[in-house]
Amino acid sequence: MLTGNHCDTLYTADYVLTQNASRDIIRYGAVAVSGNSILSVGHSDMLSIMYPDARKVDLGCAVILPGLINGHTHVPMSLLRGFSDDKALMDWLTQDIFPQEAKLTPELVELGAMFSMAEMLRTGTTAFYDMYMLERSVFRAADKMGMRAVLGESVTQFFPSLSCRDADAYFDLVREQAMEWINHPRIRQAVVPHAPYTTTPELLQRCYRTAEETGALFGMHLAETQAETETCLKTFGKRPIAYCHDLGLLSPISTFFHVVDTQQQEAELLASTQCAVVHNPASNMKLASGVSPIDTMHRAGVSVGLGTDGPASNNAQNMVREMYMASMLQKVHQLSPTACPAQMALDMATRGGAAALHDPYIGSLEPGMRADFIALSLTPPNMQPVHNVVSNIVYAATGAENRLTVVDGRELYRDGRFLSCDYEALRSEIQQAVTWATKS
Amino acid sequence: MLTGNHCDTLYTADYVLTQNASRDIIRYGAVAVSGNSILSVGHSDMLSIMYPDARKVDLGCAVILPGLINGHTHVPMSLLRGFSDDKALMDWLTQDIFPQEAKLTPELVELGAMFSMAEMLRTGTTAFYDMYMLERSVFRAADKMGMRAVLGESVTQFFPSLSCRDADAYFDLVREQAMEWINHPRIRQAVVPHAPYTTTPELLQRCYRTAEETGALFGMHLAETQAETETCLKTFGKRPIAYCHDLGLLSPISTFFHVVDTQQQEAELLASTQCAVVHNPASNMKLASGVSPIDTMHRAGVSVGLGTDGPASNNAQNMVREMYMASMLQKVHQLSPTACPAQMALDMATRGGAAALHDPYIGSLEPGMRADFIALSLTPPNMQPVHNVVSNIVYAATGAENRLTVVDGRELYRDGRFLSCDYEALRSEIQQAVTWATKS
Repeated sequence: MLTGNHCDTLYTADYVLTQNASRDIIRYGAVAVSGNSILSVGHSDMLSIMYPDARKVDLGCAVILPGLINGHTHVPMSLLRGFSDDKALMDWLTQDIFPQEAKLTPELVELGAMFSMAEMLRTGTTAFYDMYMLERSVFRAADKMGMRAVLGESVTQFFPSLSCRDADAYFDLVREQAMEWINHPRIRQAVVPHAPYTTTPELLQRCYRTAEETGALFGMHLAETQAETETCLKTFGKRPIAYCHDLGLLSPISTFFHVVDTQQQEAELLASTQCAVVHNPASNMKLASGVSPIDTMHRAGVSVGLGTDGPASNNAQNMVREMYMASMLQKVHQLSPTACPAQMALDMATRGGAAALHDPYIGSLEPGMRADFIALSLTPPNMQPVHNVVSNIVYAATGAENRLTVVDGRELYRDGRFLSCDYEALRSEIQQAVTWATKS
Repeated sequence: MLTGNHCDTLYTADYVLTQNASRDIIRYGAVAVSGNSILSVGHSDMLSIMYPDARKVDLGCAVILPGLINGHTHVPMSLLRGFSDDKALMDWLTQDIFPQEAKLTPELVELGAMFSMAEMLRTGTTAFYDMYMLERSVFRAADKMGMRAVLGESVTQFFPSLSCRDADAYFDLVREQAMEWINHPRIRQAVVPHAPYTTTPELLQRCYRTAEETGALFGMHLAETQAETETCLKTFGKRPIAYCHDLGLLSPISTFFHVVDTQQQEAELLASTQCAVVHNPASNMKLASGVSPIDTMHRAGVSVGLGTDGPASNNAQNMVREMYMASMLQKVHQLSPTACPAQMALDMATRGGAAALHDPYIGSLEPGMRADFIALSLTPPNMQPVHNVVSNIVYAATGAENRLTVVDGRELYRDGRFLSCDYEALRSEIQQAVTWATKS
């Protein structure tokens, strides 16, 4: 089967980290790419013989691994990176973030989205799940940048929004976008209500139904803080996860973001309904939301991905750093150095991310999977010696080691060059955001 | 006064972050260097006119800031980066770390030290406080690499050590090294007993006396875990800080590392005796030691620096990441997004580090201070837009943005090139550590 297909490019490196079921790591390995897919993964010597006519890209002292998957973010918010930090949550939102967001335009949203994607491509992320306002601009940006993405226009009960005058207009927009993007090879729509405390039960159910009807995914911020739980208990007499379950929102097309204030039986409910969860350690730390019980969820059988959240609350879009944060946070919170070992963090950023995006063709390097992968250099001082390549990736890497980002078989970043955008032009445009966003 | 001196080199950049008493940030700023010192800091236009004959180095879209100061580490342990992780502390030490350390040689220690210094120079650290075994090799390495350092041979009650057959031999070594390094412009000795639980009261007092007699500094791991407190209470009837106070170890030449299990009145004692403390957030998280109450110490008036701890427990020597970890850890631990704001993290890594090394000539960019500084590029996607340059440094930078490291007026790293070592040779040597360190 393997030799029957044509190999376009053969990528070789000192290590290939497959993230397959047995987590094979191949010393002097190779990944053979055919079109947008992986044809074969194996030893460099053998694959070089099998595919003598393939274009060869030898990355040398580097590790090839599956592209990292950012399970939850708000990419346009790079516009507001560093605009406001170190404030209490409600002050941060109402005094600094919301007033700026009210001034957003489709052009600004597209610019912010492109810029975050440049950061993700630079630091080894190949796919992401995004929700924001004026998301139509993010669809356009992801299409141009060549990234894989699940994208949704965020909706609350408060209208008009920047995109829609009322709920009917919102669902019209979702249906329009479903038609527009239905057969796209990399982009899929999600219907994404903001959170239980900013929506009505009727709106949530209509969102879920529309997701099902249009073949979209369903996603929402859920159980992010204790305050959310208290509000939900007061308003609906239930904790957030039970509330969503009773509305029928827990299903195999659903992904919930944050999921911090969560108990054992809620984890079991998420597992039995086959929802996915995305953990956002850096954002949870910076906004002081608390610590998600990812061990409890893992033990219950929930698929857990990792996400950065938006650049205004992270303040980076760097999944390498996010893996590190996931592990460090669990260790200090559980006061156990064995909590969230390196392999678990890497699994969340790859296989867990695939589950969060409900995409069975990403998250590992195996024949038949999409050709989404990256290559981290092992030459910088933080990456040597290589006693354990997974440890070096999770505990010592910064993300800047990434030399190559391939999505759907296409090279989008390589050795300092962005191949799907004019980065210098983008950077010069986004520097202007400093004058756009001004505190009153 | 300023114009009376000769300016050798004028470094200019879009931002100069002085870290002076009023934390001035100069847009389009310049640092004028004369010999090993800073002659003047000001606006680029003005200083260019003042020093027309100076060599000009324009860093453009970058921020110049004081070199970061790593207040506590064990540099030779880069040999064991990633050798063992995710294990309970005693298993990690006794099964994996101690057996390898028993096989160390002066040559290996020097190699590991050089390699860690390369990582520090690469990521913007100019000075550090180190303690380890066979430290004589670290003195040599720091001298060669051009870094500023406080260095001490670590000692416990258990002899022979790798360096000394008994306590007398240890103190002879300290006195020899005092003679050898007494007038070095960048290197100073410290007498560094390992910890209260690995030493006797007599040994600690002799260490402190010898530090005073030889003009050295005094440093020790202290109050790192609750287990240490319990042992100290059981053995000596006192908590660790009170125990050290009663032995006369708390003084203006003393620096204590970790200081995690600490109460309000202990913080006040550290402040009133003018000790310095070094906080190690990443190591405390990874080894699950707990969370140091740095706010309590700051409020009490203790000088708090930041350190990485060794590469076997961090696993990087990257003070940019350490600033981020310091802030994130406090926010989630205190459940307050206002805890440890960006400026506080930066202060610990610069001014606090100067206090930890008891060096009044480093930690800020001001006339008369040593010319120890770095320059982070603001061109990568994570560093734009620049709403707040301090926020971008602490919350968004990875450390890989660093383009220039100057120590004592000398350029040691610039744009990918290491100027005080043959990095490729070092890397090729340290790759062999993989075969040296093998689990039995």
